[in-house]
Amino acid sequence: MRLSQLGEFGLLAELERHGLAERIENDVAELPGGRVATQDTLVEGVHFRLGWTSWRDLGFKAAAVNLSDLAAAGATPEGLLVSLGTPGDTELEDVLELYEGMRETGAPVIGGDTARAPVVHLSVTALGRSDRVPGRGGARPGDVLVVTGPLGASAAGYHALRAGIETPLVRAHRRPPIRLAEGRELAPRAHAMLDLSDGLAPDAARLAERSGCRVAIDAGSVPVADGVAEVAERLGLAALELACGFGEDYELLAAVAEPGRFTPVGCCEHGSGAEIRLEGRLVEFAGWDHFR
Amino acid sequence: MRLSQLGEFGLLAELERHGLAERIENDVAELPGGRVATQDTLVEGVHFRLGWTSWRDLGFKAAAVNLSDLAAAGATPEGLLVSLGTPGDTELEDVLELYEGMRETGAPVIGGDTARAPVVHLSVTALGRSDRVPGRGGARPGDVLVVTGPLGASAAGYHALRAGIETPLVRAHRRPPIRLAEGRELAPRAHAMLDLSDGLAPDAARLAERSGCRVAIDAGSVPVADGVAEVAERLGLAALELACGFGEDYELLAAVAEPGRFTPVGCCEHGSGAEIRLEGRLVEFAGWDHFR
Repeated sequence: MRLSQLGEFGLLAELERHGLAERIENDVAELPGGRVATQDTLVEGVHFRLGWTSWRDLGFKAAAVNLSDLAAAGATPEGLLVSLGTPGDTELEDVLELYEGMRETGAPVIGGDTARAPVVHLSVTALGRSDRVPGRGGARPGDVLVVTGPLGASAAGYHALRAGIETPLVRAHRRPPIRLAEGRELAPRAHAMLDLSDGLAPDAARLAERSGCRVAIDAGSVPVADGVAEVAERLGLAALELACGFGEDYELLAAVAEPGRFTPVGCCEHGSGAEIRLEGRLVEFAGWDHFR
Repeated sequence: MRLSQLGEFGLLAELERHGLAERIENDVAELPGGRVATQDTLVEGVHFRLGWTSWRDLGFKAAAVNLSDLAAAGATPEGLLVSLGTPGDTELEDVLELYEGMRETGAPVIGGDTARAPVVHLSVTALGRSDRVPGRGGARPGDVLVVTGPLGASAAGYHALRAGIETPLVRAHRRPPIRLAEGRELAPRAHAMLDLSDGLAPDAARLAERSGCRVAIDAGSVPVADGVAEVAERLGLAALELACGFGEDYELLAAVAEPGRFTPVGCCEHGSGAEIRLEGRLVEFAGWDHFR
């Protein structure tokens, strides 16, 4: 079977089924002594287009998406390992901008590699420490689901870029939030936690599957970022689809006994699967797959 | 300036000069508590060709070159993070072979990422622990330089592949040694240590520069792997050039007070630079640069 038919998550499941990779779909790998590590790759033409972003923003985002995985693990970052593949005619100045963008996240680059490649690709490993990694499998019936901030700005920015619409939300797509403080605050009491990289709907479904419970999202309580409704209207899209179905928000989603200062968006129940209801009506959203 | 003019090591130097990356040219990044981490990328068409290797061998080598960096740090591996970029028409069976090849190194895959990409690229992070990382900067005048095994087999295998010559040395190019035990044995007493990835000549020059001393290699004492002379003769090349100038041997080079059970190939002196002498005559070899 070809990977394009199998999809990204199908491939990860096959690797795990054959015992060739352990917990590769988790946000972080855990090592003894509270050490955590995570690695993500961004490929030109798949995850980004250089015409739509600057080298500096690309550097920031490549570092940020990995730091976001550390945030979901309640971790404090210690450093980044960065491997850059790029064509030989790339200008040094552009590469320096890229690394400056990474530095703007506050995490130092402590190792890595560079090589010539036909298109730009960036593999970033983030290393850190966490006293307690909530993981994705501990949510239980009765838990409240909370998010750490409003959703949809990245999706609105992305679609605006595609449509040539000018909006400050483009910045949210290029410079996602890094919820390290929120992650450390939630980690000691969260039964499960992840960062919203693929979209509230598919990410909540993943949390439900891992935890062996059902997740019910109340779409009416999902906080939608300022300006998303206007962009959605100009694009002929639903604001809620941008907030629930696209991903790249990089806010944290946590299952907790009490919401505290965070925004509740739903709850965990007995059963399986995930549903999003708007005024009682069931809604469905697609996720994001990097092989399709 | 373009990266093709600057070269791989020029780029790393520029990143360090601008304070954008720390010690990125070292074999490993060191973290508190004896933790070490290293990351390398292999790109199709630059580091390997799929017609010349199997997916299984590619997996083995991608893991091995990173484990070799851990060996040079005297470390014990704990796990690998693997990011795979590959075209959508790649067969699942090939990807499973790739991960099986990685598993044959003995190090488990504990995390990572997959994505679609125009050509295959593999970024592997190896995590481990070391009681003492010798580094590259501690060699001193009077030290003996030793290697952990014979050189040139990988170069002979590579050139034989290019020339369509059949030889068992091709295996040495596809399946480099992983000198973890030797690395742990040498690390407590080595003043400097690295793995021979770019070639004895350029790698010794790097050790000399970092240590602020001069390195003199006696080409006559360099152990040349079995079969290299025959392949070199068929190719019209010097066996010594294959053993000193090509790289990818992945044996360790260490500066020590006493050679012990390892093979001495030269010594450290006052001064700077590196020289290789054969029967008193100075010889020069080119290194390997992944941007040129």
